[in-house]
Amino acid sequence: MPHDRVREALRTFVAERDWEQFHTPENLAKSIAIESGELLECFQWGGNPDLGAVQEELADVLSYCFLMADRLGLDPDQIVLDKLETTRSKYPVEKARGSSAKYDQL
Amino acid sequence: MPHDRVREALRTFVAERDWEQFHTPENLAKSIAIESGELLECFQWGGNPDLGAVQEELADVLSYCFLMADRLGLDPDQIVLDKLETTRSKYPVEKARGSSAKYDQL
Amino acid sequence: MPHDRVREALRTFVAERDWEQFHTPENLAKSIAIESGELLECFQWGGNPDLGAVQEELADVLSYCFLMADRLGLDPDQIVLDKLETTRSKYPVEKARGSSAKYDQL
Amino acid sequence: MPHDRVREALRTFVAERDWEQFHTPENLAKSIAIESGELLECFQWGGNPDLGAVQEELADVLSYCFLMADRLGLDPDQIVLDKLETTRSKYPVEKARGSSAKYDQL
Repeated sequence: MPHDRVREALRTFVAERDWEQFHTPENLAKSIAIESGELLECFQWGGNPDLGAVQEELADVLSYCFLMADRLGLDPDQIVLDKLETTRSKYPVEKARGSSAKYDQL
Repeated sequence: MPHDRVREALRTFVAERDWEQFHTPENLAKSIAIESGELLECFQWGGNPDLGAVQEELADVLSYCFLMADRLGLDPDQIVLDKLETTRSKYPVEKARGSSAKYDQL
Repeated sequence: MPHDRVREALRTFVAERDWEQFHTPENLAKSIAIESGELLECFQWGGNPDLGAVQEELADVLSYCFLMADRLGLDPDQIVLDKLETTRSKYPVEKARGSSAKYDQL
Repeated sequence: MPHDRVREALRTFVAERDWEQFHTPENLAKSIAIESGELLECFQWGGNPDLGAVQEELADVLSYCFLMADRLGLDPDQIVLDKLETTRSKYPVEKARGSSAKYDQL
């Protein structure tokens, strides 16, 4: 599926409701944190969540992430690939393999 | 850019480091919340953030979201479009236009 | 230890640095969420955290909570006791015992 | 009000429902993050929240913080005072006054 189609659907949804005024980068950052909390709530007491709820909450986090990327003129896929380059150099395979330690403690 | 390319890059990155063992849905949900907090930190005292830092933190949130989607066999774009259908019916244009009220207070 | 002593210590710390201007309720709410993310990071990959780090991050969350309570003229202990009354009625002992279900699913 | 009274009220509430089993430090850390998201939601689109809702959500964050402190044998007031010592040395008055910059950028 072309990612453009999702961006267009989100843009249309927001424009129809005249919601661009609320979607400052700061408000979107708050919204991402709020929805992440709701996603985490699916796992509050353990690892056996309602998968339908997980899917909905993950979609909410992603929607606000895509809206923020669009607002800032960023391509979601590209910034993930760019960041992966940085993370690769912080976590070289030979040092990081099988370890969950943070890069400054490897 | 095809979304598949990002998924493959993330999968390879994780597999090379033998990190699948850490990437339970629960741990990924925690990771999304943690990175959302770091993104929010860019806006802690106001709306004029370091845009380079915003891009990196948004990429981190997105990376964990994509990893969770992949782990659960979900397509990120599709679940966003599906959720948009639900949200459309909760926020009809005529009631929601120009308002930031929650759907149960429209 | 009298709670007043903590409130006074926090007030003095903030006043000496002329930081009241940054401590709007909204910025404090963001700060609580940010520090909660750092606390959660201690448990990102499992339940065996560095206890010194947990103590520091929990202190950060609490500090911002106390600052917000003070800013809004609320007594932290009293609002916890008040909320406990509400929660008691939502989770009656006979229905809630031994269950982690949400009140609307008991 | 003596802080002990709050700790006792929380302990009794939890014990009556046999909920100690769910209150691992990790689950409490998740709960603090979840409730912080709900507190932040009061400020999602701006700084004019429903103060009753803010009070309730702040109480929820504080309740889980107090439960975690109790679980780890920590005194909430003491760890805030201890952390304040650390923060004082990271943010000396003469450098930090009137600035919202992070300590490594002062």
